[in-house]
Order: sequence, then C-alpha cells, then structure tokens
Amino acid sequence: MPLVVQKFGGTSVGSVEKIKDVAKLVAQSSHAQKNVVVVSAMSGETNRLVKAALEISAQPFLPAYDMLLASGEQVSCALLAIALHELGIKAQPLLGFQAGIQTDSLFSNARIKNIQSSVLEAILANDTIPIIAGFQGVSDSDDELIPLITTLGRGGSDTSAVAVAAALKADRCDIFTDVDGVYTCDPRIVPQARRIKQMSFDEMMELASLGAKVLHMRSVELAAKFNIPLRVLSTFKPHDGATLVTNLGNMESPVVTALSAESGETLMSFQLPDKEGQKPSVFFKPLAAAGINVDVINKTSADHSGQCTLSFTVPTGEVKRVAEILKTHNVMIHRTPLAKVSIVGIGMRTHAGVAARMFEALENRQIPIHLVTTSEIKVSCLIPESEKNLALQCLHEEFELALERAAEYRTK
Amino acid sequence: MPLVVQKFGGTSVGSVEKIKDVAKLVAQSSHAQKNVVVVSAMSGETNRLVKAALEISAQPFLPAYDMLLASGEQVSCALLAIALHELGIKAQPLLGFQAGIQTDSLFSNARIKNIQSSVLEAILANDTIPIIAGFQGVSDSDDELIPLITTLGRGGSDTSAVAVAAALKADRCDIFTDVDGVYTCDPRIVPQARRIKQMSFDEMMELASLGAKVLHMRSVELAAKFNIPLRVLSTFKPHDGATLVTNLGNMESPVVTALSAESGETLMSFQLPDKEGQKPSVFFKPLAAAGINVDVINKTSADHSGQCTLSFTVPTGEVKRVAEILKTHNVMIHRTPLAKVSIVGIGMRTHAGVAARMFEALENRQIPIHLVTTSEIKVSCLIPESEKNLALQCLHEEFELALERAAEYRTK
Repeated sequence: MPLVVQKFGGTSVGSVEKIKDVAKLVAQSSHAQKNVVVVSAMSGETNRLVKAALEISAQPFLPAYDMLLASGEQVSCALLAIALHELGIKAQPLLGFQAGIQTDSLFSNARIKNIQSSVLEAILANDTIPIIAGFQGVSDSDDELIPLITTLGRGGSDTSAVAVAAALKADRCDIFTDVDGVYTCDPRIVPQARRIKQMSFDEMMELASLGAKVLHMRSVELAAKFNIPLRVLSTFKPHDGATLVTNLGNMESPVVTALSAESGETLMSFQLPDKEGQKPSVFFKPLAAAGINVDVINKTSADHSGQCTLSFTVPTGEVKRVAEILKTHNVMIHRTPLAKVSIVGIGMRTHAGVAARMFEALENRQIPIHLVTTSEIKVSCLIPESEKNLALQCLHEEFELALERAAEYRTK
Repeated sequence: MPLVVQKFGGTSVGSVEKIKDVAKLVAQSSHAQKNVVVVSAMSGETNRLVKAALEISAQPFLPAYDMLLASGEQVSCALLAIALHELGIKAQPLLGFQAGIQTDSLFSNARIKNIQSSVLEAILANDTIPIIAGFQGVSDSDDELIPLITTLGRGGSDTSAVAVAAALKADRCDIFTDVDGVYTCDPRIVPQARRIKQMSFDEMMELASLGAKVLHMRSVELAAKFNIPLRVLSTFKPHDGATLVTNLGNMESPVVTALSAESGETLMSFQLPDKEGQKPSVFFKPLAAAGINVDVINKTSADHSGQCTLSFTVPTGEVKRVAEILKTHNVMIHRTPLAKVSIVGIGMRTHAGVAARMFEALENRQIPIHLVTTSEIKVSCLIPESEKNLALQCLHEEFELALERAAEYRTK
C-alpha cells in the first residue's frame, strides 16, 4: 500500500464537527493506503494566542511565545486522535518533540534539521496512524539545557508535512485545504479559470512567491528537493479533483500555466524643476528615516517646460505617512494604486517572445505598464490596480488557459 | 535566601491582566527569596477543552485527552514567562516533560514517580525563575515507544507544586488562590468564622477529604510526607495574611480547629407492614440494577400498629429516579435532604468526650442526628440540610472557634 502524508489546514479542523469529518476522511482513505496525518491549529486559535501574548508584551520572549503558539496544534492533534479512536481506528497523537522533529533554535521561524523517523516507523508498523502536530518542533542545540519547543513560522504545517513525507520516503503528500486545487487564475475575477490538474514544483514556487496562499514556499522547495509529489485538494469535497505538483519536465508544457495578481503597492509621483543641485535624495532621506520602504524609483528627464517627474512605489499602507513627510516640499503628489500581474510557466524556458505577447495583450487594452520584472519562468508587470481584472481576463484569453494542457491530458 | 515554590491557581491567572499581576507579585517576592513557579490553566480553559473532547467522544482516548488538557497549563505557563520577561526578570517556561516530572501511565489520574531536579537546579543557578506548567507530567514507562504526556487529575497543580518543592527541598510551598487562607467555618454561614493562622497536615487532610476545596488531598499528603510547610494565601491580597499548614504537634492544640459542611445526600424513608417474608431487598434490587448508589440503610422494628420504617440515603440528584423506580410499590416516600457537618482537630486525639459535646450542642438546638461517623481527629454528623447553618453556628460557638488558639499565639 502506498504511504501518504495527509495535512489538514486550520479551516479543515476549524470546529469539533469538522474534526469529526476529517477523522472519517482519514479512516476511509486508510483502506487503500497507509496514512500519516499532520494538522494545523483550529482556525482562529493561533490568532487568539498571538493576541494574548501581544497584550502582555509588544516583543514577547520568543521561547515562551513558541511554546504558547504550539498549544494550538496540540489541541487539534489530540482532538483528531480522539475522533479516530471513536471510529475504532488506532491513532497516536504526537507533538513535535515526540515525533522527533528536530529544528534549529531560531524561535518563531525555526528550520527543520532532522526528523528521527524511527518512532513514526514503529507506530506505522503497529497499524496505528501517527497524528502529528504541525508547525512545531523541538530545538536540538547543545547550548541549551533542555530541548525547547520551536515553531516554524508562517505555513509551518505544510513544511512539517512535507518534511515528514521526505523522512518516511512517502509516496505522496496530500495538502487538504478549503479549495480543491490551484487555479489558472482567481475564478472570482476570471470565470473561465480552470483548476490545474498537474504542474511543476518550479511553477508552484513562483506562484507561492507571488502571494498564492494555497501552499507555502518553503514546503514546495522541500518537496522539490526530496521529490515528494504534492496534491492540493479540498477537505470538504475530496473527490472533486485536485492539483498534483511534481517535478514535471517542461517538454510537453505550455508556455504559461497560471496567472497571479497581487495588490498593495502605490505609485507616488510629482513634478519638480530639473535644475542643477536638485537631488532626489532630499525626498528619500526623510522617508528612510521614518522607516518607509521605498521600492522602485524613477526620474524622467526634463520636459519642454524644464520639469521632470519623480516617481516611486511604496506599500499602500504608507501612502498617508509619505504624503505627510513630503508636505514641506510643497509638491502636488499624484497617487496610483498598483497591481502586480504575473504569468508563470516552465514552458517559458524554451519559448521566446512570451513577454512580448504579454505586453502586446495589455497594450491592446490600453493598460499602462509601469514596471516589468522577470525570472526564468515568470514575467510580472506593475499596472494600475483599476486595470487588474481586465488585465487578468485578457491574459487568460491570450495564453488560452481555459484549455487543458498536453501534460494534463497525459496524466488523466 | 529561602527557596519557595509558588503555585498560582486558575482564577489567579484567569486573564491577561491577572497574569501581569502575578508576574509583578513573583518579581517583587524575588528580592527576598528564590522562586520556582507552578501554574494552573486559566480558569474556564480546562472546562472548554473537556467540552470539546466530550462532543467528539463520551469516553475519549485517554492519552490524547491528557495531551489535550495539558495545553491549558502550557498557555498560562508561556504567558507568565512572557510577562516576567516584560518586567526584565529572567524566566524559563517548562512543560512537564521539560521539568522532568515523571509519572506512571495512569492517564488522567497519573501519580508522580520522580522529579529529575537537575534541570530546575541548573536554571535556578543561572538566576532564572523556572515557570512550570502544573497538572502535567510525562510517562516513564518502558512499555511505551515514546514519553507520553500525562495529567494528574483534580487538584493536580497543587500536587505538582508540592512535588517540585519536595524534589528541590524547598523551604516552603505557597499556594496562591482566590481566598486568603483556611477558615474555621464558611464565613457566609458563620460570620464569626476566623482565618486559621496555623494548622496541622492531618487537620488539613481531613478538611480536604470533607470537601474543602482550597487544597487538594493528594497535595497535603505529599507535603506531610516530605514535611514541606504549605502556606495558603490570596493572589489578590497577598499581604492580608495566610494559613500555614505544617506538621504541628498536638500538644498545644485546641480540641477542634475547624468545621466543615457538605450537602448532596437525601434521606428517603417510607413505612411498610413488618410482616414475615417482607424483605427490604425487593426495594433495593431494582435500584442497584439502575446503578443508583444507595449509601446508609436502616429498618426500624414494628410499631404498635405493626408498621416499620425503611430508610436509606442516596445522592440528591438521584431522588427523582428512585421515586420513579419505587412507584410500583405504592408506598408514601418521605424525603429529607441531609447535610454532613463535621468537626476536625488534632486535639481530639488526647481529649475525650469531644463527640459527646458535639451531640449535646446539636440536641440543645433540637437538631436530629441521622448518622455519625468518626476518625481519630474528626466527628461527622448527618443532619437535615435545613438545620445546617444553625448547626454550624452553634458548634462554632460551642468549641470557641472565634478565639485564637494557643499554637497560633505562639507563632505570631
């Protein structure tokens, strides 16, 4: 029987009723495969704990903070084990230290150094399902008197699950969540968006780095490193399909697999006389002093009236503070909220002219492009936020994402 | 500097604000003594967890159940450590397994077998306050693959605190709670009731066995065994006084130290003809079959009309079911809710006639006594619940409990 690590996110175990449903799902799938389960904290629980800590200290003592947060996964792990026993299934709940998940001592953002798989293997050999509290580990440092509880930071339970799968040389890691896979684009914006049946680790990493929340970057990196196929599927409709993420070659791949869009930056620009001695630094020094993270900066050359335009992007949340700081300069600041729209696909490696097709598609709709960044398998354009939906729709059409890909046909 | 274990109960750490107050109290007392802290779960938290488990299973899988409940103390332990660091005090939060609290494998009611004190001593030597999650330990069984989390059952955090004090040979164990000590009687019933300044372990154990909730039986037994003086005092008014519990001899002790009263039993009685062949078992067999715990049974001999009275006590919560079951016998059942009123004092060991004084005091007030039980240092009378307050008031007066005792004068 194949060995599968099943990871359930916070919404999947968000209530006692949902935990019972997860237990049924684990029990049913246990007929055809050996399961190891990893759980997140019940949704809302981690936020509740963080709030309590911050009410006591703006900078909580990290070893205690990690111990605090780890209690969230402890609760869901124990409740799921109780629910499985209620169904007559043997299950052993395990905290990070019990499952042998050893990390470094970087509290709140620890990295897994090693998993002592012997305990898990012995439990499996006893026909018992290990239920592992995700997101947590135990420090393995000689400097410390005792093993301390660590947490892995954002998306930590995904990382726990993939690391356990790697340690056990599992056949697959199933990430159960509240959506049934990864889509070519957000279906609320592009109704033609389609679940991707199969994609590569590289593509998933690009999408994760562009803000796709379905899988955390670190977990995908780890899965790629140890070549553990990932399956993203819905806890609530597990039979409706899934997205399989593997080390798919790019031979049969189309140029573009998926689109993504992120908001949150604003372009600020103003005109100023292009006279000698006028240095942009007079604007940026006070911003830096205020701790405002200015990203891209651009200065045009002077126009016929001797004016040039200075523009830069800042996080939208900082726009008010920036305006306040620059008030003394008496300039008229123009603000444009931006969206970063990206195309991702491993086929780009072997196909030229993909970026040109993207620009042309956007230009045909009169969508201005403020900035372009690229990687080997991605092109991102900063455009006005107001044009985001139109941009996604036209790009989805341009790259024919509503059609299934050759590689997907192959795996059907 | 003396070494003191400070234990804070659930109401003492019942909110973020209260945890901050406890941190201040620990910080202040650290000037004059070395502290080790043991905490309960925030009040209400354990009940919340129990409720979730019972919603999933009427008989939860105990190893998972203990892991679940242990998360409550984990949260308060971590938050208190954060609060102490915020005050600039070095504190190390420790779960049961980290503090080396080894127990047997009797889940939900485990007993402490051993505490590996070396970790606590090393932390203390580093001028750091150990903050230990109470109520929990780790199983130390060769049968198990991995150390499992156990909990100690009701009053477990008191037991944790005393066990830690014993392991570290502490000078004292301070039990911080929501009252400022043990009283001669419930002050809501007897306004003259007085906080007892000093009492013996034996007296405290009797009071605990009679339902006094301020200290749990097991913790007092353990304190007596290792001769660790216990101090009961209020978290909210720590300077208002306390009750010191020690191995006080009975030389200078008064006869009676304190009164207690418990409710919850009801006397059920009915008349029936005392004819041959009429066996009380016909009444009790169906009650036993229904799982009703009948305590004391009494049958009078026949009166002049040939009727005898059969009476027995049952938990008050079962009265309705009993009446329902006995309906077929067509008897008129009389119900009298009862209270158990007790006097406790190690002086009884050397003073005769204490029970007689108690009976006389109750008889003088026309209070009927249904049953008497005694131990070496205690006399308990079952009386009608309606007479409870009167009984406590007259006994408090009879044994002059409003006056301070010789032993207490000595220690002032």
